[in-house]
Amino acid sequence: MAHTINTDVFLAFSTYATIVILKMMFMAPLTGYFRVTRRAFANPEDTHMGKTPEEKKRMVRVNEDVERVRRCHQNDLENIIPFVVIGLLYALTGPELSTALLLFRLFVGSRFIHTVSYVMALPQPSRGLSWMVGMAVTFCMAYRVLTTALLL
Amino acid sequence: MAHTINTDVFLAFSTYATIVILKMMFMAPLTGYFRVTRRAFANPEDTHMGKTPEEKKRMVRVNEDVERVRRCHQNDLENIIPFVVIGLLYALTGPELSTALLLFRLFVGSRFIHTVSYVMALPQPSRGLSWMVGMAVTFCMAYRVLTTALLL
Amino acid sequence: MAHTINTDVFLAFSTYATIVILKMMFMAPLTGYFRVTRRAFANPEDTHMGKTPEEKKRMVRVNEDVERVRRCHQNDLENIIPFVVIGLLYALTGPELSTALLLFRLFVGSRFIHTVSYVMALPQPSRGLSWMVGMAVTFCMAYRVLTTALLL
Repeated sequence: MAHTINTDVFLAFSTYATIVILKMMFMAPLTGYFRVTRRAFANPEDTHMGKTPEEKKRMVRVNEDVERVRRCHQNDLENIIPFVVIGLLYALTGPELSTALLLFRLFVGSRFIHTVSYVMALPQPSRGLSWMVGMAVTFCMAYRVLTTALLL
Repeated sequence: MAHTINTDVFLAFSTYATIVILKMMFMAPLTGYFRVTRRAFANPEDTHMGKTPEEKKRMVRVNEDVERVRRCHQNDLENIIPFVVIGLLYALTGPELSTALLLFRLFVGSRFIHTVSYVMALPQPSRGLSWMVGMAVTFCMAYRVLTTALLL
Repeated sequence: MAHTINTDVFLAFSTYATIVILKMMFMAPLTGYFRVTRRAFANPEDTHMGKTPEEKKRMVRVNEDVERVRRCHQNDLENIIPFVVIGLLYALTGPELSTALLLFRLFVGSRFIHTVSYVMALPQPSRGLSWMVGMAVTFCMAYRVLTTALLL
């Protein structure tokens, strides 16, 4: 395997990993947006918008729209971090650039579809299918890592 | 330190990191299994199994078995990801292969025991002890990274 | 770019990444401390402190101090892991050591302030500002990665 291909795979990995991590980080301001518009906060010190002490107390509450974004964020943590870790190891196994690009694009695309499906509560199986595509990509890369670099 | 040893440590790290991340990812289908069998979902759009609108509404609920698996998944995120990050840096400090293998095997073994203890609700201290072994391994590796590669 | 600078940036990254991950791991024993002192556990098998079955049953409950530490831990997961992943890729783009040190120190400092602000419930905007500094550092590094190593 040529050194150039390796470098390119690593550059592609860097690009897609950064994009999908930025997407994950975007869930935090989105949660903040829903917390402010739904007036639903987790901490008493965040309710300075409230005018009276009673109003402030009522603003520490659970809101379904906020919880939905938080579940989406949690699902990102559970799926994107495994992709980044296994993707890094996969990039070091020297795969074909075209295969690597296909896997990285599939994963990142599936996670964008997953986020839109989750936050907009689109009917299933849009969210389920996009989640499965992401899982399948990470499994493919894990298989390659284990068959190429096994040392138990 | 010989280059061969370094490569072997990195191969061993790749193998164990991939195995323990796959174990963590397995918690997602396990959660799904409990959600379906306990008929307890987080989102209204996931309750297509329900026949009537009332049944669907009742299926959006919290179930203790589901929550237990989710707590186990969360504990994995909080422990396995630090292991992977610090383990990668540790592998680059050029440790002895035998020491590295011992630490990696201890960690991965402890997390499998932790998962079984948690999901099957085994009496303590099985879960507590396995959690502590994992923490201790990560601390050992962090100590080595900080004493080998300190640049503040 | 000189190879020495690269190595130093990587050593600096290793040091700060390990410190901030250790800080994140410290949230677990802190949660344990609050669970024991507030007598509020998540699992029935953890309530062996209780003398009678009724007391044990009452100890499986939600406590606001415990939840606060857990929210802080969750926020660490959502911010520190993106920093570590993007920071690793950033360190490989060959930045100036002084710039890299500034970014790493800003991030780690901001996360320590964030934890103190969150756990001690300091009035806003201490927590909000420290969170924003951390996000801004990670965005800066992501920008550098995408402009240096873009391969889509």
